[in-house]
Amino acid sequence: MLSHIKIVLVETTHPGNIGGVARAMKNMNISNLCLVSPKIFPSADATSRASGADDILAKATVCSTLQEAIADCNIVIGASARCRSISWPEMSPREFAENIAFSESSNKIAVIFGRENSGLKNNELDLCHFLLRIPCNSDYSSLNIAAAVQVVCYELFVAADQQEAIHIGDRGKTAKATAIQMESFYTHLYQALTDIGFMHPDKSKTIMRRLRRIYNRVELDIKELDILRGILRMSQNNQRNE
Amino acid sequence: MLSHIKIVLVETTHPGNIGGVARAMKNMNISNLCLVSPKIFPSADATSRASGADDILAKATVCSTLQEAIADCNIVIGASARCRSISWPEMSPREFAENIAFSESSNKIAVIFGRENSGLKNNELDLCHFLLRIPCNSDYSSLNIAAAVQVVCYELFVAADQQEAIHIGDRGKTAKATAIQMESFYTHLYQALTDIGFMHPDKSKTIMRRLRRIYNRVELDIKELDILRGILRMSQNNQRNE
Repeated sequence: MLSHIKIVLVETTHPGNIGGVARAMKNMNISNLCLVSPKIFPSADATSRASGADDILAKATVCSTLQEAIADCNIVIGASARCRSISWPEMSPREFAENIAFSESSNKIAVIFGRENSGLKNNELDLCHFLLRIPCNSDYSSLNIAAAVQVVCYELFVAADQQEAIHIGDRGKTAKATAIQMESFYTHLYQALTDIGFMHPDKSKTIMRRLRRIYNRVELDIKELDILRGILRMSQNNQRNE
Repeated sequence: MLSHIKIVLVETTHPGNIGGVARAMKNMNISNLCLVSPKIFPSADATSRASGADDILAKATVCSTLQEAIADCNIVIGASARCRSISWPEMSPREFAENIAFSESSNKIAVIFGRENSGLKNNELDLCHFLLRIPCNSDYSSLNIAAAVQVVCYELFVAADQQEAIHIGDRGKTAKATAIQMESFYTHLYQALTDIGFMHPDKSKTIMRRLRRIYNRVELDIKELDILRGILRMSQNNQRNE
């Protein structure tokens, strides 16, 4: 389920960190590792820190450029701790794992981690579709690279598990309702509640805000939305028949 | 918000790992570290791997027994990779962070991590209220201790953020609906849908199952439940007035 994910490390300085990354990946069932111009590799330090995940190191590919590393990927995500002046589309590891990582089965996705001290350069970020920012203490925001990989791979593993559960359940792959469909639902809901006499003009704003909070939170799929709109129609019909 | 959390390391062998733990903690704004009989501490290796989180190391407490380390804590959680024959109450870091960590403001919580090679002993687990199991590859389930602390502290940081957002929003601290209140809601919902003529006998089971899935997923609080039941009552009144 996670074979479409590739972890790319750019110019990693400490080979121990490469080993730590391999271990973090294998713990979370992710096995494609690509190293762009690592300072020292292979290395006994890497193998030692990998601690049984040396199979990941053995089949890691080594590239001389980032372009080469991501050539077969159609989604490229750059991990970044820095708040950059340029505003890049940014998301958290959870948003990435839940909304992007499994959205299309044909995607091949690279997640890129920069140098230990200086991260990714702007010309490398130019190759990314999104920046990934791990939520953390804003006064001490630089995670060890293996720790950062651990968090991202962990979120992917948890989301893969949830995906599998969803595929098994009959909620299946029904599409989530779009924002436009939800707005149309809220208009319908307001009208139906007015029709059945539930809406008092002085309370309607608060009520609608609370209802929006409920139904936005639940992330309805379009089948579920159909059922709810069916109920609204029926309550309106009753009213009109009166 | 996270000052009630204490990370406890039991008989850690490699001082570098203690440094890695300190860094992982500080990244996620958690600062109480307690070391039970560390093999080597303080140590240049620990300080080097802490990489700027040496303030966490400087104020870490060192105890000779686990009992001493957790004496001021009323909830004790043991991190464990092993599936044990004894069935202990077990949860994931996310369940811990979302359901336990912030459930009462007066709680003091210890999260205990065992030895690098052998984890926690059974007599140490006897002191724990829950086991914490990080979801991972079942064929390679032993995370580096700093990586495990990173995942747990990350989940706590994300949940603290969410808690803060909830406290600011007017959803406030309204209690979640209980299972009994939800059952009573579903009975009411079924009756109201029957009253307005939405329920066909051959479809009612499927419809109710789908509606349950929606409303269970959203985790209604009791104010939200009141609004929904008000709507149901009003649609029934209309029907009865007909």
